[in-house]
Amino acid sequence: MKGNEFAGLGLEEIAEKIESMEIRGAAKIARAAAHALKEEAVKDEGELDERINEAIERLKRTRPTAVSLQNAIRFVTMNKNSDFTVDMIKERVDTFIKKSHSAGEKIAEYGGKRISSGNTILTHCNSSMALKAIKYAWDEGKEIDVIATESRPKKQGYITVREMAEYGIPVTLIVDSAVRYKMTDVDHVYVGADTIASNGAVINKIGTSQVALCAHEARVPVTVCAETYKFSRETAFGDLVEIEERDPEEIVDPDEFPGVKINNPVFDATPADYVDCVVTEEGVISPSESYRVIKEMMKG
Amino acid sequence: MKGNEFAGLGLEEIAEKIESMEIRGAAKIARAAAHALKEEAVKDEGELDERINEAIERLKRTRPTAVSLQNAIRFVTMNKNSDFTVDMIKERVDTFIKKSHSAGEKIAEYGGKRISSGNTILTHCNSSMALKAIKYAWDEGKEIDVIATESRPKKQGYITVREMAEYGIPVTLIVDSAVRYKMTDVDHVYVGADTIASNGAVINKIGTSQVALCAHEARVPVTVCAETYKFSRETAFGDLVEIEERDPEEIVDPDEFPGVKINNPVFDATPADYVDCVVTEEGVISPSESYRVIKEMMKG
Amino acid sequence: MKGNEFAGLGLEEIAEKIESMEIRGAAKIARAAAHALKEEAVKDEGELDERINEAIERLKRTRPTAVSLQNAIRFVTMNKNSDFTVDMIKERVDTFIKKSHSAGEKIAEYGGKRISSGNTILTHCNSSMALKAIKYAWDEGKEIDVIATESRPKKQGYITVREMAEYGIPVTLIVDSAVRYKMTDVDHVYVGADTIASNGAVINKIGTSQVALCAHEARVPVTVCAETYKFSRETAFGDLVEIEERDPEEIVDPDEFPGVKINNPVFDATPADYVDCVVTEEGVISPSESYRVIKEMMKG
Amino acid sequence: MKGNEFAGLGLEEIAEKIESMEIRGAAKIARAAAHALKEEAVKDEGELDERINEAIERLKRTRPTAVSLQNAIRFVTMNKNSDFTVDMIKERVDTFIKKSHSAGEKIAEYGGKRISSGNTILTHCNSSMALKAIKYAWDEGKEIDVIATESRPKKQGYITVREMAEYGIPVTLIVDSAVRYKMTDVDHVYVGADTIASNGAVINKIGTSQVALCAHEARVPVTVCAETYKFSRETAFGDLVEIEERDPEEIVDPDEFPGVKINNPVFDATPADYVDCVVTEEGVISPSESYRVIKEMMKG
Amino acid sequence: MKGNEFAGLGLEEIAEKIESMEIRGAAKIARAAAHALKEEAVKDEGELDERINEAIERLKRTRPTAVSLQNAIRFVTMNKNSDFTVDMIKERVDTFIKKSHSAGEKIAEYGGKRISSGNTILTHCNSSMALKAIKYAWDEGKEIDVIATESRPKKQGYITVREMAEYGIPVTLIVDSAVRYKMTDVDHVYVGADTIASNGAVINKIGTSQVALCAHEARVPVTVCAETYKFSRETAFGDLVEIEERDPEEIVDPDEFPGVKINNPVFDATPADYVDCVVTEEGVISPSESYRVIKEMMKG
Amino acid sequence: MKGNEFAGLGLEEIAEKIESMEIRGAAKIARAAAHALKEEAVKDEGELDERINEAIERLKRTRPTAVSLQNAIRFVTMNKNSDFTVDMIKERVDTFIKKSHSAGEKIAEYGGKRISSGNTILTHCNSSMALKAIKYAWDEGKEIDVIATESRPKKQGYITVREMAEYGIPVTLIVDSAVRYKMTDVDHVYVGADTIASNGAVINKIGTSQVALCAHEARVPVTVCAETYKFSRETAFGDLVEIEERDPEEIVDPDEFPGVKINNPVFDATPADYVDCVVTEEGVISPSESYRVIKEMMKG
Repeated sequence: MKGNEFAGLGLEEIAEKIESMEIRGAAKIARAAAHALKEEAVKDEGELDERINEAIERLKRTRPTAVSLQNAIRFVTMNKNSDFTVDMIKERVDTFIKKSHSAGEKIAEYGGKRISSGNTILTHCNSSMALKAIKYAWDEGKEIDVIATESRPKKQGYITVREMAEYGIPVTLIVDSAVRYKMTDVDHVYVGADTIASNGAVINKIGTSQVALCAHEARVPVTVCAETYKFSRETAFGDLVEIEERDPEEIVDPDEFPGVKINNPVFDATPADYVDCVVTEEGVISPSESYRVIKEMMKG
Repeated sequence: MKGNEFAGLGLEEIAEKIESMEIRGAAKIARAAAHALKEEAVKDEGELDERINEAIERLKRTRPTAVSLQNAIRFVTMNKNSDFTVDMIKERVDTFIKKSHSAGEKIAEYGGKRISSGNTILTHCNSSMALKAIKYAWDEGKEIDVIATESRPKKQGYITVREMAEYGIPVTLIVDSAVRYKMTDVDHVYVGADTIASNGAVINKIGTSQVALCAHEARVPVTVCAETYKFSRETAFGDLVEIEERDPEEIVDPDEFPGVKINNPVFDATPADYVDCVVTEEGVISPSESYRVIKEMMKG
Repeated sequence: MKGNEFAGLGLEEIAEKIESMEIRGAAKIARAAAHALKEEAVKDEGELDERINEAIERLKRTRPTAVSLQNAIRFVTMNKNSDFTVDMIKERVDTFIKKSHSAGEKIAEYGGKRISSGNTILTHCNSSMALKAIKYAWDEGKEIDVIATESRPKKQGYITVREMAEYGIPVTLIVDSAVRYKMTDVDHVYVGADTIASNGAVINKIGTSQVALCAHEARVPVTVCAETYKFSRETAFGDLVEIEERDPEEIVDPDEFPGVKINNPVFDATPADYVDCVVTEEGVISPSESYRVIKEMMKG
Repeated sequence: MKGNEFAGLGLEEIAEKIESMEIRGAAKIARAAAHALKEEAVKDEGELDERINEAIERLKRTRPTAVSLQNAIRFVTMNKNSDFTVDMIKERVDTFIKKSHSAGEKIAEYGGKRISSGNTILTHCNSSMALKAIKYAWDEGKEIDVIATESRPKKQGYITVREMAEYGIPVTLIVDSAVRYKMTDVDHVYVGADTIASNGAVINKIGTSQVALCAHEARVPVTVCAETYKFSRETAFGDLVEIEERDPEEIVDPDEFPGVKINNPVFDATPADYVDCVVTEEGVISPSESYRVIKEMMKG
Repeated sequence: MKGNEFAGLGLEEIAEKIESMEIRGAAKIARAAAHALKEEAVKDEGELDERINEAIERLKRTRPTAVSLQNAIRFVTMNKNSDFTVDMIKERVDTFIKKSHSAGEKIAEYGGKRISSGNTILTHCNSSMALKAIKYAWDEGKEIDVIATESRPKKQGYITVREMAEYGIPVTLIVDSAVRYKMTDVDHVYVGADTIASNGAVINKIGTSQVALCAHEARVPVTVCAETYKFSRETAFGDLVEIEERDPEEIVDPDEFPGVKINNPVFDATPADYVDCVVTEEGVISPSESYRVIKEMMKG
Repeated sequence: MKGNEFAGLGLEEIAEKIESMEIRGAAKIARAAAHALKEEAVKDEGELDERINEAIERLKRTRPTAVSLQNAIRFVTMNKNSDFTVDMIKERVDTFIKKSHSAGEKIAEYGGKRISSGNTILTHCNSSMALKAIKYAWDEGKEIDVIATESRPKKQGYITVREMAEYGIPVTLIVDSAVRYKMTDVDHVYVGADTIASNGAVINKIGTSQVALCAHEARVPVTVCAETYKFSRETAFGDLVEIEERDPEEIVDPDEFPGVKINNPVFDATPADYVDCVVTEEGVISPSESYRVIKEMMKG
């Protein structure tokens, strides 16, 4: 386990760093929020329950739709809003942070073992969990090839191909439109997830559902690598995962396209049918077991 | 019928203009080649058969894989290589050019009539035939919306959205990865074709097959707009349509991506199963009738 | 061949009988229109071309969307609008009527032979061609069972089950919603067609496409029985088959349902993918050959 | 929570009212049976275990195939058949009734939140749970349209359209055969369930599986609204859900159809594959989690 | 063109050799029948029409269900049964035999060109046409691998693997059950056809349809290699292709299996949907064009 | 419950009998291993923990990939490797053996109840669990027919048909290639499982996935009969189920096929999508619940 990456930071500093995206990535945000709760718990001022609840409100405001942040708070508070004790908060925070650190290693291992020597793996966008699994396979001495999409508009695929090339893994860059063309050479699709809904639908970077459809058409299995705190409790109670519409400027300069609307959705939803398995730190599961994961997540 | 667009140009000038891509577009190349044959036919030197065959060789060398050029020559020569007469060549060339000019208008009409007021049409790349059909529908007073993909790497979608916006047609630009996300709002997919194989497979800009797959999944009909000279006689005799691999620089500067392979296929193949109909100048057909079209194309 | 069923009737009487639906059914309307043209042709007054063209206008107005009427006129006139001769019209009319009478017999035979002893055939609505084929199989001594849907709103299925029961064929009536439930007991679906589009889509009584989908899901072949004059030349030139919206009163008394919209489409379109074959008087074909049929229909 | 709807009624009265269908609807029957058990428990005569077991036998006889009744008894008795105490029975009954009352509200909320403004929802038959969810969405100010099928033979769709119209929700009535035709305008299918089998198959009003198939074909998600006591423990132990065959007279007067068999199945089974999610009072789940729901149901 | 393989044989000898299966294989039977008709035609006895018709009867009796035999006779007689001339028969027979010889070469070429270097081709049973195409590709210097099924019960796959190994082509033998397991390594399926029905269904060795289904599931194209005289005119007129049930002893000795029924169907039917193309001597076509092929076959 | 089938056998004898396959079949191996652990536990020598761990090592070496053996050990040791007590081991072993004996009976019952009179059931290979379920249905007086595949190369289907015939159940033998041909006559597919992966994929005898695909295509439900100790915990942690490649001689004598590679995979993987339900001793579940089964298996 790593040293405390947020040592010395208090609630407000952490909240601000999350807001400014200085602290980013689902896992890091979750650990930071947990750390902030601990910092508040050990303070010796006012009433504990109140302090914790105020801290929670502050943290939730930083990124209202971040599933991992909600889940971190829920884990630490055991889904209660009163009767906290300092010891209980401390113990839950430590447990959460420890679990978070080990989750990535487990996903890398479980996901990596599913890749065989000689395989070609197609990935979309830049998922740290998916790439960890691919690297694990490579580190085990398996001969693999990676195909990465550009992932317009932000082209996170460029980060992916550089990361693979620096690691020494043979990698090929293609445009997003070439996925179906290349799919007949592919043995596995590995992607991450932003959020997994309670019915097993996987919300991830725009284009993921299209990649999964092309894989399904060609009998290529799709593996989603995701920590359990990506599973959304809110969806279990009917909330839809809102698909954020981002700035058109990410695509083109609108001034150069007078009279043209520009639509820039950041995520799409892949139905559970197109997903062979989800690799979590708890193990390899069917996406259809999402609700059970959500239910058990709180127990720690 | 328009005036002679190649007036004053002889065989060699036309051949060079095709090579330099000054003359481009399947239809224009075909008419230019036909015109060149007529120019050769009316010359008063040497032996006619020989002259024509030499001209054919010269023209074929300009763009060896251009289906429309092959088909134009085949139409004019009635698939023979001797016993030509000047009158026959002249008459065939005039017929071909007339047919070519009217083909676009007919495809616009037949394709445009299939669009209903209130429809949203998604298009990929920049197909003049597909856009003609969309404009025809608009000109008929139908209220329509167009969604156009970027079409990486060359971004011909930018030409499409500008063309639509200038024409006054409401149009939305999306990245190629957003096709499946938007498909639930779409009533029709309209695309062009580079080549149609004898088994009905449609070879077109990279990404077309992926768009068609997404449409098929959502019960959205796919209409391909293509003149009959896009149907490839070579495929009837076993030739595969070679998918050209273009310069990686169209995607990124390879120097900035050391150790990364870049794959840039320009076309892909959409199976006939995903195509609702092909709109040709002869009428609206099933893609499965491709061989018959090829067989009858020669008759004029 | 039967005696002349329209003996003594002139153009105007026939036109009115078609309008009043005294003459009805695709085949009968077509023959009546042909007969009327002959009556006009043999008249000894005015100019023949003009007379025929006026008759055509009159006939087309009676049922502007009836495909068989259009096709009968087109057959008789050989798709021309001048240079008629009395002999030519007479000969074409006689040929058409003869062909029409024999078409039903041939479809019965070709369609009936495809049914095997022990088969259960599901049918929808009340198609004379589909039922002729079923009766042919029965007459050949094959032991068959028929399942017929109600076919709301007009309940033409009641006519079907009575017709089958009177013929002695074991028949079971089900509601339209029970089609998928019963499909696992079914060996063949036999239906008729109102119109066949040039891309092979089959336009028929509302619900047909849903029956075909259920059949496709369960690997049960769908046979469409239809004369070639059901193939629509208009669709080859881009026309859509307009789906008529009928009187809500066919479903319920709207006054008893204040505030409720009632939607009563009379037909739907079955994609060619869900049709195993079309049985025409020319033979058993793939629906994808529709355009060829349309093209050859005129030749006689 | 509502007042006691069965106040003053004893075991025998409740049993008779269930038999006579005066007490009907899965939820009401379940609560009534629970209430009856409490009435028996508090009696001061004979031996408690015996009294309860006799009451159970009496209740089971009223509607032997009603899943909710079985589940209510199982919940109250904690699946035991001896060692009952009056307090335990009282407490379990009160808990069950409270849970039952709140289940509908939760399903309405969770199901309603999944509907977005601008959506068109198709529903089949007359499911109080599905309609509650639709009304919840409407009450939240969402602009929605409802399409309801007739649902032959009993035409429960007429109740649905009147209920919607009275609530002010725009609603359109269609015949059952028009589902596939209308599906391209539909954003969601919402239906109820009679029973959910342990493998996730949804048994509901005849025609539901056909609606779900049409939705699946067009990428329209199907939402099933059902309390957890619709999940059948019997199916987990191999029982098939028997599809009741009802009186032919519900369809037609058999005397008017001599020689015609009439088949009137009341339910059909929709495979889990065609169901996007099940909305229960515990949350939104995949139908594949059915067995887990059954297992946990007993715990209370 | 080869020398006359039936020189010196008359009608009766040929008929007997076909009956005794000394002359076998669709192509050889067809040419033998044609040759026999020519031998009869040139005889100087009796009436020509009568002689030919008697010869036809004799030949048809030899193998009543052999499609190629029927088609050979039909070609030679131009589908007439009178007004024959000796010259016409001679000319038609010579044309037919010439066409037959060249058909195999053309199919080899057209089919072989569709295979690319590096491809793995799976084949079922022992189709001379499919193997010719594979050998053509090999002869062109393409590096290919072949996977061949055993093809129980007669194990024609053993002939295939020996033929491939002798030709030097790398080949792997698998049991029929391993087709889906191996399909992810396969680029093409190449099979022959016994008969092609007028709706495009391909009747071939038992198991072919299962191989094609596995290919379809994995987006592997299926190529059928078949001369046009495999297309069955009888199916166009409603005849079903009867699936012959062969001797159980081909599978096991029934005496060793008392009480066990043994079912040994020799062919099955692959729907046109699972066939990417049919390679005929006329060219590469969609199976949906079957009826047109049948119609044109007679013209010569 | 049966008497102790391994009475008198100690660890080493059991280990050797498992290695020599004298003790075989997933269930028997599991019970034998459990028995061996009990024998070791009650020994009065050395340290208990050490003794048990050494015994475990010895047992695991016998059949390193046998899922049921691993699961038996895991059950008995409660997944611990220290702090054992003799009583705890004895109690866990007795419980395991009891559960194992009753599992078969429960699966027979739950699986048998799902078969209806009049059904035809297709089975592949020779699964004792699947056959138990079929016999249960027969014993209940249901009229059923069984179709069994040969199951090349080892032809376990011969055992199946003999077993059925001896039991009096009507049974038909077919070659593996005839599955799709016969599928239209089939109501249920019943197969066993060698291993069930944590994402619900079913690993079973080569050909099973192909049978399941054919069933899926024809809307025939596939039932897998398997004890919970067939569910593989290893797959939950990323292990792939290795598909054993067996001796080519099982297929043919390689010497008779010079230059021919022979590929003899013993299992294949059926995706959860093609499985209607898994019948376990705990009940009928969706294959997607595999991970939950694995998780709960240990609890006993």
